[in-house]
Amino acid sequence: MNYKELYDRIRSKGSFLCVGLDTDPEKIPACVKEQCGNSSMLAFNKAIIDATAPYAVAYKPNIAFYEAEGVSGWQQLAETVSYIRGNYPGMFIIADAKRGDIGNTADRYAKAFFETMDFDAVTLAPYMGSDSIRPFLKRSGHWGIVLAMTSNKSAEEFETLTVTGGSANGENTPSSVPLYERIIRDTVQSVEAEFGNSEDRLMFVVGATRPEKLAEIRRYCPDHFLLVPGVGAQGGSLEEVARHGLNSHCGLLVNSSRGIIYASSGEDFAAAAATAAREMAEQMKLTLKRF
Amino acid sequence: MNYKELYDRIRSKGSFLCVGLDTDPEKIPACVKEQCGNSSMLAFNKAIIDATAPYAVAYKPNIAFYEAEGVSGWQQLAETVSYIRGNYPGMFIIADAKRGDIGNTADRYAKAFFETMDFDAVTLAPYMGSDSIRPFLKRSGHWGIVLAMTSNKSAEEFETLTVTGGSANGENTPSSVPLYERIIRDTVQSVEAEFGNSEDRLMFVVGATRPEKLAEIRRYCPDHFLLVPGVGAQGGSLEEVARHGLNSHCGLLVNSSRGIIYASSGEDFAAAAATAAREMAEQMKLTLKRF
Repeated sequence: MNYKELYDRIRSKGSFLCVGLDTDPEKIPACVKEQCGNSSMLAFNKAIIDATAPYAVAYKPNIAFYEAEGVSGWQQLAETVSYIRGNYPGMFIIADAKRGDIGNTADRYAKAFFETMDFDAVTLAPYMGSDSIRPFLKRSGHWGIVLAMTSNKSAEEFETLTVTGGSANGENTPSSVPLYERIIRDTVQSVEAEFGNSEDRLMFVVGATRPEKLAEIRRYCPDHFLLVPGVGAQGGSLEEVARHGLNSHCGLLVNSSRGIIYASSGEDFAAAAATAAREMAEQMKLTLKRF
Repeated sequence: MNYKELYDRIRSKGSFLCVGLDTDPEKIPACVKEQCGNSSMLAFNKAIIDATAPYAVAYKPNIAFYEAEGVSGWQQLAETVSYIRGNYPGMFIIADAKRGDIGNTADRYAKAFFETMDFDAVTLAPYMGSDSIRPFLKRSGHWGIVLAMTSNKSAEEFETLTVTGGSANGENTPSSVPLYERIIRDTVQSVEAEFGNSEDRLMFVVGATRPEKLAEIRRYCPDHFLLVPGVGAQGGSLEEVARHGLNSHCGLLVNSSRGIIYASSGEDFAAAAATAAREMAEQMKLTLKRF
């Protein structure tokens, strides 16, 4: 899916909601586990997807939750992706995997998520530099989503340190900036040097828990989509995120995981997820009109 | 396995060789593929392990290569780990996974590698800070191996930038250092604050392609084990690595992947791997005596 197609989907649905499938076997309602045993993660996901698809433009399985269950988890992850593809065409599917490795290894991770499974995008860790990003960007219509400013407590240990030195790509990068800003600026420039454009294959992760950073990032990164986790359970405000992060093509995918998929732990879990997703989507629709 | 046990193993074998199982289906010799079909990765690994076990103290499957093959890859990875555990007790097994995510997600990755599978250690990406490291360190005898200075070309884009600011842990951290140094110093200090010691559960990755960095890192990180990739195919020299990196408890695990496992692409691949591993181990034995 390219930039324009993603924007068209958001406009036609009036929503920029990404539902995070952080499917924890311990939190799957008892009624699902009793009925579905070893395929409970998949059954839970299907029910959540059916309930929330009218309100969402994207799904984001959190790969760790599947990996923790071994072969069975990977099987259910692959089937979840196939289920979305088969039943909800045009959905944007993100592997929240935060992979990052040297070139020949990154190539393999790209194969895992883009060929062996049918994801549209993978979240990526930037520490090792552009070698570890590039292999994810070379397939047209597929995206790398690079960690910039994350929503967790310890994000400020390294991500916000002031960095200087090195051979900053391009003349427009100031010599002394926070690490996450350097990563955004350098990554955009190195991707554009290779592929001509970057908005069509590159996004960044910016946590909702620091909306003031969104405003700052929009000054040097006005056009890219940003994947914004941390609304809901982690305390971020959708209103604040939209105020600081929206651009003329929306430019935001706001993720909610626990607030939607665990809205109820009873037999009404799917209906409760639908309600939670609908409420967010309604707020998004108003927001899209207002800004 | 704790620090002392690892050192004892190295001393008794006279080797600090880690064999990297970057098992690429396209590079598996035809004779293995013909015989073993869908379980060729496992069959290849078993043959390589049997051939190299006398010379190695550690194995390091590169997780991407298994992940790329989907469910079958994960199955063969799990069976590779079981095979080493069952046949070569005391071997140190590293998941080269470079995971890194917020706390509750990192917990799941730790479960994947330490409970669902039986690894001793996982390589970790430090970008998101200590939240993403801590969950891997809380099981006694298990290790997190944090990326510091890697061996790839683009490592110098971010890892070596000079950083200032933030609330550096402890008084001994200079205010202006390369990012990888800040990560090593801060991680050691935050792990020691929580667990009392860090040498028993924490290592760092330092690439063999920059041996001068090893000498520098030894000044503020004298006791920790360092996992050193990049000898062989990537161009690093074992002699240089040993000169700058060895400490009184060896303190090094030097990894070779392609130089050993693809030493021959013919029917003699296992014998060729044994020869390549033996040559490295012999060099290591001399080195351990000399320094």
